[in-house]
Amino acid sequence: MSLDQVQVAIVGAGISGLQAARLLQKKYRVRVLEARERVGGRLCNHQFTNGDTVDVGGQWVGPGQDRMYRLIEELGASTWPLYDSGDNLLCLNSKLRRYRGTIPRINPLALADLGIAMARFEAMAKSIDPTAPWEYKKARQWDATTLDTWLHKNCRTRLGRELFEVGIGAVFAGEAKDLSLLHALFYARSGHSLETLLAVTGGAQQDRVHGGTAGLCERMAAELGQAVQLNAAVEAVEQLPDGRLRVRHQSGSVVCERVIVALPPNQALRIRFEPELPAWRDQLLQRMPAGACIKCIARYDKPFWREEGLSGQVASPAGPVRVTFDNSEAGRESGLLMGFLEGDVARYYSNVDPEQRRAAVLDCFAQYFGERARQPLEYVDKDWSSEPWTRGCYAAHLAPGTWTSYGPRMRETNGPVHWAGTEFATEWFGYMEGALEAAERAADEVAGALARTSGRLELVTA
Amino acid sequence: MSLDQVQVAIVGAGISGLQAARLLQKKYRVRVLEARERVGGRLCNHQFTNGDTVDVGGQWVGPGQDRMYRLIEELGASTWPLYDSGDNLLCLNSKLRRYRGTIPRINPLALADLGIAMARFEAMAKSIDPTAPWEYKKARQWDATTLDTWLHKNCRTRLGRELFEVGIGAVFAGEAKDLSLLHALFYARSGHSLETLLAVTGGAQQDRVHGGTAGLCERMAAELGQAVQLNAAVEAVEQLPDGRLRVRHQSGSVVCERVIVALPPNQALRIRFEPELPAWRDQLLQRMPAGACIKCIARYDKPFWREEGLSGQVASPAGPVRVTFDNSEAGRESGLLMGFLEGDVARYYSNVDPEQRRAAVLDCFAQYFGERARQPLEYVDKDWSSEPWTRGCYAAHLAPGTWTSYGPRMRETNGPVHWAGTEFATEWFGYMEGALEAAERAADEVAGALARTSGRLELVTA
Repeated sequence: MSLDQVQVAIVGAGISGLQAARLLQKKYRVRVLEARERVGGRLCNHQFTNGDTVDVGGQWVGPGQDRMYRLIEELGASTWPLYDSGDNLLCLNSKLRRYRGTIPRINPLALADLGIAMARFEAMAKSIDPTAPWEYKKARQWDATTLDTWLHKNCRTRLGRELFEVGIGAVFAGEAKDLSLLHALFYARSGHSLETLLAVTGGAQQDRVHGGTAGLCERMAAELGQAVQLNAAVEAVEQLPDGRLRVRHQSGSVVCERVIVALPPNQALRIRFEPELPAWRDQLLQRMPAGACIKCIARYDKPFWREEGLSGQVASPAGPVRVTFDNSEAGRESGLLMGFLEGDVARYYSNVDPEQRRAAVLDCFAQYFGERARQPLEYVDKDWSSEPWTRGCYAAHLAPGTWTSYGPRMRETNGPVHWAGTEFATEWFGYMEGALEAAERAADEVAGALARTSGRLELVTA
Repeated sequence: MSLDQVQVAIVGAGISGLQAARLLQKKYRVRVLEARERVGGRLCNHQFTNGDTVDVGGQWVGPGQDRMYRLIEELGASTWPLYDSGDNLLCLNSKLRRYRGTIPRINPLALADLGIAMARFEAMAKSIDPTAPWEYKKARQWDATTLDTWLHKNCRTRLGRELFEVGIGAVFAGEAKDLSLLHALFYARSGHSLETLLAVTGGAQQDRVHGGTAGLCERMAAELGQAVQLNAAVEAVEQLPDGRLRVRHQSGSVVCERVIVALPPNQALRIRFEPELPAWRDQLLQRMPAGACIKCIARYDKPFWREEGLSGQVASPAGPVRVTFDNSEAGRESGLLMGFLEGDVARYYSNVDPEQRRAAVLDCFAQYFGERARQPLEYVDKDWSSEPWTRGCYAAHLAPGTWTSYGPRMRETNGPVHWAGTEFATEWFGYMEGALEAAERAADEVAGALARTSGRLELVTA
């Protein structure tokens, strides 16, 4: 194989890696190395037989995600608002109740309990600086506590807790027992507030992208042209005697001056570095497991629930599908219902035969929207924990104790190795917006470093 | 390279992998693939210039570890009891207090507080079945709580908590905030009781092994001869169309029918499997980070503290060295003091210049044993988090939430892939004894599978 030389190698062609490449490409020779035979990472399209394109990965953008809206515009793409009219449904003990807005009509005691707990959570989240969550005076105490412990202390009715937990599942793709309270608070703060993360209109579920979010990545990759190399899973990053790095991948190797790792942390951990990364970096990555989520979408001839004045949005503590959305595409006839299996439910259904899983999901849809929902024209689901090169969704979380022991160095550069990907963002951690923030920071770091060292390194590479 | 065929490939020549190989070698063609140029894994010798051999990794065996004593005898090795006479020291606010046995003379309130908390912890641990910690009726509740939360609720004096935390550091090489309460209880139960894990005579720190525990591994490797291959870091395990597995390593590949993975979980996660391991196995491994520990040993001309009636054992909440032991070898003149840096302290000192780290450790030794301790003849320390192919010590723990979501399948076989290593044991998880238990189980599984399938596979491999 030929000696392939660039200035910057970027590992992973998700939206973060691609954005870093776009920012650097103007001035530097860049290569994006992607394990899969597609770009997009956790953003992924599925096409139904009628031509409807649906996101089976990350799909939403919302207010405050300025980088995303700017990118969408730059790429000549556009958004439409998720269908958010009509009544929402709350399913309790197999009974449906309609409600509008974010507050369902339930037992006033549970409602007050839930409201007070959420207000408390929001107030605590506000006290955190998302660029340095470890600095708050109670950081160590909060990091030493699980969200579950906090919830049991602060939400005393069972129903209040169950509804809070529906929100936790929807936001974290995990269970309250898995999460450091500090991480949960940081995460909410990082995306403005828990309410923002839960809301559709005005919140993190407001808008969808025409052609799918993976379509954005395809456009970015098209701009980058030959700089994107598919089927090139990176196995090792080795420093050469002259200080440059050799990035070994499935089908060859690239020599470069700087590397940006733009992978989910659990994947970054699997790359061998020579010399090794410092202990703190390796142990941090060991403590950033990915959430568990299966995204399920059924296609019907039309969005029939709208005729009954329903929004398509359900909250259902009993599940297994605990939240649903009307995922129909703008300007298309089909009605698409989308539901999430999350946390322990996702873990369970990950091991269940696909036909049974489909049946369980459609059972839920039928329970919420009537028998008609049991017979879609088509159905697709995506279990991101089973997906090689990702192994969990939506994002990684920091296990209890991790933010305060390892967090302060999270975004530090390891010599010529820089860190991008949504888990290395301060704002909108876990969202596409965060992936862009991290990409910008990493690209800035690399540009700064190359400006400082290019003289010397040019000599070496000459 | 030639096509290298065996029946069983074992990944990792720690004591678990080597034992599995010994058990299988009598009947099967076996290959042990080891990344390093030495065997032993987390067991490792250091030789001082005077010839003293010291364990810089795992070193102790104690009552109840029957497999270990049997192995030591089989290999023609022997043990001696750790020096455990004289007074222990407790260092509080820079003041030393002598005490005998396990109970220091401190403020009676703190003493009672500590005693009650420990008794409560022990009673809870006893209620757990170490083969199925997820089954206890309070398992989910305990797994949703950190040990830190429990400790703050059950130990109300600051001194009581600080002393409990010295024990937690010594046993887990981690902080109470990192640990699921259920995991901590399971771990104690798995090694009989917390008291057993803390005790010297009659407990887990009772005996040392002549020639070091790594010496045992060398003897095992000598028995295995050509079956042990060094410098063979395994990168991938790929299933061939005929059902056999190709194990790709640094310097070639081996074709086999069964694989035993006998690695720390964080290392196992870095091997690529094709086809991929199921989601639950991958996500479980993502949730088993290794502890943090630096083991520090100073050599003096003689164990001078003994003359003053001291055992060499210190408990010191302020640290940085929180516990020490008289690590002198039987029948040698030198006095060896050993101290641990653990959890956050280990994380901190991992990033500190070696000379400064040495000075900080010797400062502690001098504080505990007088100025003479500041000037050893030699000093060595080992930061296991910095060590490639290990990346943390003593063992992995399961992050909060993990035992109840993933634990039930922990020791399950993944088709032809079997799991050994101390983290896959039910008794003495985290100890050498556990490594042997897991090795036996994995070897039994493999032997059973080969007995069932050898007809068919012999045909295939013919």
